Amino acid sequence: MTGRTAPEKSPLSDSVVEALRMIVGASYVVVDPDVTATYRTDWTGRFHSGAVPVVRPASLDEVQAVVALANLEHFHVVPQGGNTGLVGGSVPTSTNSVIVSTERLRATGPIDTLGANIIVDAGVKLSELQEALRSSGWTFGVDLGARESCTIGGMVATNAGGINVVRYGTMRRQVLGIEAVLGDGTIVSHMAALEKDNTGYDLEGLLTGSEGTLGIITKVALRLRSTPKRMSTALLAVSDVSAAVRVAARLRRVLPSLDALEFMLGTGVKLVQSVFGGEMPWPVDDLTALLLVEVAGDGDVDMELAAACAFVASDLTAEPAVATGPSSRAALWRWREEHTAAIGTIGVPLKLDISLPQRAISAFIAELDTLPLSAPAIVFGHLGDGNLHVNVPGAFGRKHVSGSNGGPNTFDSPGGDDAALVTEALILELVMSHGGSISAEHGIGVAKVPYLSLGRTRAELQTFARLKAALDPNGVLNPGVLLPR
Amino acid sequence: MTGRTAPEKSPLSDSVVEALRMIVGASYVVVDPDVTATYRTDWTGRFHSGAVPVVRPASLDEVQAVVALANLEHFHVVPQGGNTGLVGGSVPTSTNSVIVSTERLRATGPIDTLGANIIVDAGVKLSELQEALRSSGWTFGVDLGARESCTIGGMVATNAGGINVVRYGTMRRQVLGIEAVLGDGTIVSHMAALEKDNTGYDLEGLLTGSEGTLGIITKVALRLRSTPKRMSTALLAVSDVSAAVRVAARLRRVLPSLDALEFMLGTGVKLVQSVFGGEMPWPVDDLTALLLVEVAGDGDVDMELAAACAFVASDLTAEPAVATGPSSRAALWRWREEHTAAIGTIGVPLKLDISLPQRAISAFIAELDTLPLSAPAIVFGHLGDGNLHVNVPGAFGRKHVSGSNGGPNTFDSPGGDDAALVTEALILELVMSHGGSISAEHGIGVAKVPYLSLGRTRAELQTFARLKAALDPNGVLNPGVLLPR
Repeated sequence: MTGRTAPEKSPLSDSVVEALRMIVGASYVVVDPDVTATYRTDWTGRFHSGAVPVVRPASLDEVQAVVALANLEHFHVVPQGGNTGLVGGSVPTSTNSVIVSTERLRATGPIDTLGANIIVDAGVKLSELQEALRSSGWTFGVDLGARESCTIGGMVATNAGGINVVRYGTMRRQVLGIEAVLGDGTIVSHMAALEKDNTGYDLEGLLTGSEGTLGIITKVALRLRSTPKRMSTALLAVSDVSAAVRVAARLRRVLPSLDALEFMLGTGVKLVQSVFGGEMPWPVDDLTALLLVEVAGDGDVDMELAAACAFVASDLTAEPAVATGPSSRAALWRWREEHTAAIGTIGVPLKLDISLPQRAISAFIAELDTLPLSAPAIVFGHLGDGNLHVNVPGAFGRKHVSGSNGGPNTFDSPGGDDAALVTEALILELVMSHGGSISAEHGIGVAKVPYLSLGRTRAELQTFARLKAALDPNGVLNPGVLLPR
Repeated sequence: MTGRTAPEKSPLSDSVVEALRMIVGASYVVVDPDVTATYRTDWTGRFHSGAVPVVRPASLDEVQAVVALANLEHFHVVPQGGNTGLVGGSVPTSTNSVIVSTERLRATGPIDTLGANIIVDAGVKLSELQEALRSSGWTFGVDLGARESCTIGGMVATNAGGINVVRYGTMRRQVLGIEAVLGDGTIVSHMAALEKDNTGYDLEGLLTGSEGTLGIITKVALRLRSTPKRMSTALLAVSDVSAAVRVAARLRRVLPSLDALEFMLGTGVKLVQSVFGGEMPWPVDDLTALLLVEVAGDGDVDMELAAACAFVASDLTAEPAVATGPSSRAALWRWREEHTAAIGTIGVPLKLDISLPQRAISAFIAELDTLPLSAPAIVFGHLGDGNLHVNVPGAFGRKHVSGSNGGPNTFDSPGGDDAALVTEALILELVMSHGGSISAEHGIGVAKVPYLSLGRTRAELQTFARLKAALDPNGVLNPGVLLPR
């Protein structure tokens, strides 16, 4: 089960472990709890499993054999990519499990320049795909902070998002084909990478975002985009959140080459400045809400961005800060990117990843300020998609710094973890009262299962369970993830 | 069963018909075979059903009650929108059925200008949605020739495509939310129209393109696009098919505002000219392959298109013919749009709707010419998506014109319908040998079921059947469509 339990001995029989060794080769079944520790703890550090073997297949057939064995021998299979998820979806919930790491599925196909696509194995890291595309003139449309660790398979399994969704969509829109082993051991493979193909149900869309509960993705065909030649970035100060939403909507309409449309509050920017220093283009005390706008294309993107800024000028409280070169663009982006680290200096935050209808964003943020939180929430995120990250700094433990010269950090949880979870429920209920979603891009994992019923009816959850039973009738894949047990 | 059978009496019991009348109101259950005739024959005229009642519910609850009754009383339910499908998917395959027409589901919600979306009932016609958007500055991203008849629900159920897919994608990409009644009577409703929402399996994607076999779609939330202010169109002559594919790929890369990228062969254009007259910009006898390129945006689209034409100039065999005003653009489009009518003058054609990887298109068309066809195939279509329409003129009956002054038309089927079906199989096998799809945008219906196994493994078909059983356990919805019985 999840929780900070000591590693226990795997309950898998020796004969099962021996069979796994026969399938993937002895050196690719790791049982030593010290060696498997990093696989058994999730990225957030919040979710752990007891000692389970880590199995590292090198081919579709090996993955298929492991899943077939699991159906026969009644153990669970937890697929794991880069283990960078934020909701505990890649760590077993019982020790009657194996972790199937995709890290040995490593092939990156040639670029299909006529079709604008590429075939990539599940275990390829995002940064490796980016490296394979470098200097090719092609770009992959989803980028994430975890690029050095996260795998393509994991990104598909979680329908990952990131800052360019406003232009290219989430992972589901990048997927042209999937090869996978379903929960019952069935191999599905639809890899012709056709833009249009109405021959049957959308298995690709269904597997994307299914968080390893329906199948283990082994290979995907991905859309590629022509790399834009030029980029231009602007930081915009607006009077309030509703002005930010209005400006964002107008920018989306007039800027077809809009690459990113990020949102910050004055409180967040002030925190970043107090922790990391640096000068804003305007006095920070005057700031209420800000937008970071990035345009990328082959044409005169500076002019396009300037024209768009002029179009929304009546809603701006100051002249836009515009940047074209890499370093000046980075100097604008840091205000957005350093939010997470700045919030982390206060303590262990409660982090929520939510979606809202654009029309509800302003009211939501206003009402958030009236909730009884242990600290004022800091909100930032991908406004172009209605996707906000809500952080309550120090909700899981507030840092005490002993004097200005440091000393060991200590943490003091304001009311304990239970209080943080009450806060989480309070915020998520507010999200739902505005017609939003409790998970925009992070998924459900185990962390959000208790809240899934806020946004889905009982009938819909039963429908999900029937889909799960159809593809994974013995429930071998990732039990406890995405669906209530 | 399908086929040109005389209407028989519906085998539904009087008490079932009475119950249906209780649900939707007596005047909305139509049993008179003369009145229901248009509902019982598909658009192609190839598929008919015997006498079955047409039920016209006016609400989600009425649809749900009809489906619940079908599960209880063991009859089939065939959802029908505009009945404009080309594969016989909206006409019953047994008389133990009712047709559920969505034509009374008529609401068109207000435009959400901040969220760029609109909520529309399934029975709204595409042209009605277009009318509701007129002068709003918003456009719906999918447009079809059948716009005056086809319904939004039918377009979602068939994952419809059309000429703008190269820019905006098929229907699946337009759908932000679906309300539907599943085969077992479960209501699912996920209508918050959020761009990002990772709370559970992608039911919306699964229902889209499921051709009425998993659920009856009653309402959808659709993405809207800002209406481009200007359009520019060019007709390009290229030396051969592989040059056309190469030029198309380069245009897709350099033209972010590319709205359409259509393909024709010299043989098709010559046929259009011989039937309907008109002057091409160049001597038709010199033409091998042509591209029709349309760009739409708020900027200087003429300049963008001219620059793109210059970029591909080395592959063009003549100066591009460029048009900006509506009538000159229409004068270029007619060469593409009149293909279907021109082919129809020869007789009843065999029409196939296929997809190919871009790299295979040239070889496919070359090999097509070597097949033993009753007449040379005419190929045209949406090259930007790899979607070709392959027509064998007169395959189902060739027209004999008795002298130049007309007289009654007579048809002579070259080898009968069976010969046409052999030709169909031959062409589809060629498609598959090039890694293509037997159905790009038309779907499977009943017409393509025999060919589904060409592109899908037995294991995949069994997986589809399990998904069907999960959502429609009693098999009440559209039996015989999309899946083999």
